Amino acid sequence: MSDALLATIQSPADLRELDVDKLPQLAEEIRHAICDQVARSGGHLTPNLGVVELTIALHYVFDFAHDRLLFDVGHQCYPHKLLTGRQHLLRKLRSREGMAGFPEPRESNYDLFSVGHAGTSISTAVGMARADSILATQDRRVVSLIGDASIVNGVALEGLNNAGTLKRQFLVVLNDNGMSIAKPQGAMAQYFDRIRISHTFGDLKARAKQVLSHLPHAETVEKLYARLTGALHAAVHPEHIFSGFGLVCVGPIDGHDISGLIKMFEQVKDFERPLLIHCKTIKGKGFDFASGDPTTFHSPKPFVRNGRGVELKEGGRSFTTAYADAMIELMQKDNKVFAITAAMPDGTGLAKVMQSFPERTLDTGICESHTMDMCAGMAKAGLKPFFAVYSTFSQRALDQVFQEVALQGLPVRVCMDRAGFVGGDGAVHHGFMDIAMFKTMPGNVLLAASDEPNLKAGLEFMRQYNDGPSFIRYPRDNVANPSLHPQVPPFELGKACLVHATTTQQKPQLAILAYGTQVYAAYEAVRKLEQQGFNMALYDARFAKPIDMQLVSQLITDSVPLVTIEDHMLLGGFGATVLEGLNELQLPTHLVYRMGMPQKWVYQDSRQNQLAEVGLDAQSITQRLLDILQQRTIRPQTMSPAKTPHANLYS
Amino acid sequence: MSDALLATIQSPADLRELDVDKLPQLAEEIRHAICDQVARSGGHLTPNLGVVELTIALHYVFDFAHDRLLFDVGHQCYPHKLLTGRQHLLRKLRSREGMAGFPEPRESNYDLFSVGHAGTSISTAVGMARADSILATQDRRVVSLIGDASIVNGVALEGLNNAGTLKRQFLVVLNDNGMSIAKPQGAMAQYFDRIRISHTFGDLKARAKQVLSHLPHAETVEKLYARLTGALHAAVHPEHIFSGFGLVCVGPIDGHDISGLIKMFEQVKDFERPLLIHCKTIKGKGFDFASGDPTTFHSPKPFVRNGRGVELKEGGRSFTTAYADAMIELMQKDNKVFAITAAMPDGTGLAKVMQSFPERTLDTGICESHTMDMCAGMAKAGLKPFFAVYSTFSQRALDQVFQEVALQGLPVRVCMDRAGFVGGDGAVHHGFMDIAMFKTMPGNVLLAASDEPNLKAGLEFMRQYNDGPSFIRYPRDNVANPSLHPQVPPFELGKACLVHATTTQQKPQLAILAYGTQVYAAYEAVRKLEQQGFNMALYDARFAKPIDMQLVSQLITDSVPLVTIEDHMLLGGFGATVLEGLNELQLPTHLVYRMGMPQKWVYQDSRQNQLAEVGLDAQSITQRLLDILQQRTIRPQTMSPAKTPHANLYS
Repeated sequence: MSDALLATIQSPADLRELDVDKLPQLAEEIRHAICDQVARSGGHLTPNLGVVELTIALHYVFDFAHDRLLFDVGHQCYPHKLLTGRQHLLRKLRSREGMAGFPEPRESNYDLFSVGHAGTSISTAVGMARADSILATQDRRVVSLIGDASIVNGVALEGLNNAGTLKRQFLVVLNDNGMSIAKPQGAMAQYFDRIRISHTFGDLKARAKQVLSHLPHAETVEKLYARLTGALHAAVHPEHIFSGFGLVCVGPIDGHDISGLIKMFEQVKDFERPLLIHCKTIKGKGFDFASGDPTTFHSPKPFVRNGRGVELKEGGRSFTTAYADAMIELMQKDNKVFAITAAMPDGTGLAKVMQSFPERTLDTGICESHTMDMCAGMAKAGLKPFFAVYSTFSQRALDQVFQEVALQGLPVRVCMDRAGFVGGDGAVHHGFMDIAMFKTMPGNVLLAASDEPNLKAGLEFMRQYNDGPSFIRYPRDNVANPSLHPQVPPFELGKACLVHATTTQQKPQLAILAYGTQVYAAYEAVRKLEQQGFNMALYDARFAKPIDMQLVSQLITDSVPLVTIEDHMLLGGFGATVLEGLNELQLPTHLVYRMGMPQKWVYQDSRQNQLAEVGLDAQSITQRLLDILQQRTIRPQTMSPAKTPHANLYS
Repeated sequence: MSDALLATIQSPADLRELDVDKLPQLAEEIRHAICDQVARSGGHLTPNLGVVELTIALHYVFDFAHDRLLFDVGHQCYPHKLLTGRQHLLRKLRSREGMAGFPEPRESNYDLFSVGHAGTSISTAVGMARADSILATQDRRVVSLIGDASIVNGVALEGLNNAGTLKRQFLVVLNDNGMSIAKPQGAMAQYFDRIRISHTFGDLKARAKQVLSHLPHAETVEKLYARLTGALHAAVHPEHIFSGFGLVCVGPIDGHDISGLIKMFEQVKDFERPLLIHCKTIKGKGFDFASGDPTTFHSPKPFVRNGRGVELKEGGRSFTTAYADAMIELMQKDNKVFAITAAMPDGTGLAKVMQSFPERTLDTGICESHTMDMCAGMAKAGLKPFFAVYSTFSQRALDQVFQEVALQGLPVRVCMDRAGFVGGDGAVHHGFMDIAMFKTMPGNVLLAASDEPNLKAGLEFMRQYNDGPSFIRYPRDNVANPSLHPQVPPFELGKACLVHATTTQQKPQLAILAYGTQVYAAYEAVRKLEQQGFNMALYDARFAKPIDMQLVSQLITDSVPLVTIEDHMLLGGFGATVLEGLNELQLPTHLVYRMGMPQKWVYQDSRQNQLAEVGLDAQSITQRLLDILQQRTIRPQTMSPAKTPHANLYS
């Protein structure tokens, strides 16, 4: 496919030079550019294919060098980026030197916020609208582009409720593709499903029904409304669900009809009241394989299109898949286990679980706050809810974890996928603070899974643990294959587990307490140092709360230097709790060395590069351990190698 | 007023023995019992007066020993408590041995969740409904009682959206008093305002309009609906805003007509689809002084009713008032400062600020998540938003602080009132984790105000600090009067401030680094120990991030024992950061002693008692300091007293 037109667009000003009848061709070029790149590198596909015409029309009518365009979630920003001077970044999509997969102000002033969590665009837009009105430096229009799955998120609904009180221009473009990330959930999704496109913009001109009297604030809106032409007039939908929120609602209209969209936006761009245009779009539009399976191609790994179809490249066995299989086992043995996701059935592996247990699984849509409270209700009534949620999205349920879960002491199980660095999704999605936020509340139990056997054992512990809330974390990564130990001992509350000791005959020269998959990087380091003659011990911490203080204090009392490792922010994290525990026991901490994320934002890249960037890969860990041994003038010993790799020195 | 009827009610079973025509008298007795007690002890008044009839009617029709009653916010639970065996606890309302001011499962099985944060009842009810249906042990009905201010909170709207998908009995009772905690905010409040009670239950019988065809899911609901009698039939409101959420909506009806309510609940109690009954009530109903000023009497301090009116007891100068005055000063000098509250204009002092700056203040309603994002938008556009929010409610905006504020590096100013123990509101309202959750994100700056001069200086620092987000905390308490120093030096990023030193001639025998108002309790302790001849230094830490590590490491290098004090959870708090900072610098921590909240929930009581309970009052601090001195065998010195109380030893 040629990119003759696209190549001429250095900025939206170039776009506006084109005749409207050229724009469908531009849309085609954009579609192909995106699809080709996502096939190469992976990335968000169907969300971007769905908004090509909308994006072109918005940039054609508004001037977002000056006006404000707020994206919601933001994984539908690729067409926008291609129109705003970033075509050269596409080839390195989602890598450090390339294009971020989400809006990113560091790339361009056309991106106002880096986003990735849903439902926020209306609220930030309300803030910018209010500020622009107050500062009154110039007349800036504000537009929020939001999907049907995001708009039912609590933050978005709160935002709409407040947007409805504005007395100025404020445009919400609702991109309704009838799909969330997966299938739409909730009663409002059924509502959206019921209102279909009843007319195109052209048809509207023939429609004459007078709907003015039904508008909210009819008196004040009347004059403004009178300025709109007959066509738009007829498109107003007075009984639209968001009319109750105080917005004038228009549509639904066809979100792929570029010239219709442009005429519509031209008409409403200076409408001086909050207005919502409901656009119906097709997720994955333009490619049958994508629009036919918009969930699989929402954010696929690299794939190959051949004559017969599309082949997704295989990626190994992920923690997500391991989680799904472990949950199926749990649910087979315990009919009180109930599995929940908030709009991430594929991302969390629950799609697979749903096939086996349709009656004991639920997708609630993008609403983590509600979902956590729902889990609390379930636990209160005697079920065993397991809420599978990305670590980064668990932040949205912090207050519910506090009030409805921890304060009540209810055994809700929270399973946090994508804990730690997440790779290409970048800073908006890292799970960097789940330990810090959940450890603070009395009674919470925190676990991490270092590999598949430990994930299974950890989940089994959680199934049995009914004394309060428990949280397990695991990364967006493959499980180790093979794992260090095919069988692991059961999880015991607050007990670490010895993974490897150079010898059991004498105390180690240096011990490592790793939380989560860093056990594996640490193991590599330990083996290297053993080869140099050092006597090492490596523990899988398993619990960040309660921490195995018996082990820690024994090591410190024995004067063994102790290195903690975690794929989490150092400040407030696992190693910090070790320091606190020692201080509480009036034991010294100068033998403790902590490795984890430093206080900086880490941007899109491969997960492995991100770990290396902050010194959490095997090589950096090896070097750090060597530095510590050197600093403490610890010399290699000669000894016989470990006989019983599972022998537990201290517990 | 006699309590002849009320005294006979030991449980709802007794209530159901009464004839319906006796119930208005019972309502009167309940009102007087509550009003008399709140006059004595303070507490929530107008919310409780508004729901007396609703509560009686619900208990009359349902059996909540078995059925599920979920309160929202929960400050309207007093009538419920009086009907469920807790009259004897009323006289000690909000004290440890008395009645909690919020639902409290520790008191009674009739209370399912301890709540105090809004918008959660629909979500927990959905969870219980789903679990009850799955476990199918018995047929339990589920009822959520929620106010008009809470139902527009994001969690509630998410909850409704998911409730709308239930295929079973599920009743939401909307208590619409047209008031939030203060005035209602947002577009939906205007909607509620527009729909007035058009009919009483009696009138309905005469109403015959057929509305069935407008119902959502008309096919499935039809049969159920046919079972309802004509009166209820006529009360269905097919265009009610929550119909779009998939609920059958009824009303609005009169929420003070007990017999009408009972008939209505009788009719709908087995309706096997989600149903919302919209009840109009009067906040403060029954007492003119209360219904005439429902905001002032929402949660008053003790008051006296005399012939001429009602006199509120004076309470001294609170941090809240000091904050209001400081904000007015800031806004006078800087026209970019904008002040915001989320439904707490009185609680945060913003009501006073609003009078001076109506154009640069805003109450957004109960929607902290939205509000934080709105602030981010304002900061992005160049304003200086100051969001006044209770520490406990800031938990609801954690994810927005992450994505829209910290990750963008935007200078949003968050002013956290009621940080630390809050007294009578108890465990649902303590600000125990603001340091832990906000310190984890790169770039956040955390401050605390120890008294009024420091509050003013801290806010002035925040006004000038444009490099990123800043957060200040201060307690639900009076400011010290007089303060230790009428004038304090300006805040300097990451610098502590010497408050008092026994001498500047030599290094102290023990130093205290207090964060926030514990400076004052520590000062008392220091003075006592000085009288015993010890040489002490007391610092106001001012910053929990960045911490004054220059000062800390100097003290530790000088071998001065250092005690950190904070009115915040120890785990992950201020003292923990001190340990982390020292560990980072490879300095020892055995000289550091930390005082703060232990890992347990602390229930309703006076703030002073709560502080004493965990060893944070002056007496406990004195004892702890003495223990440390003794343990370290530090003996009193003889020295001349401090000449320059403000001399700064180390910085």
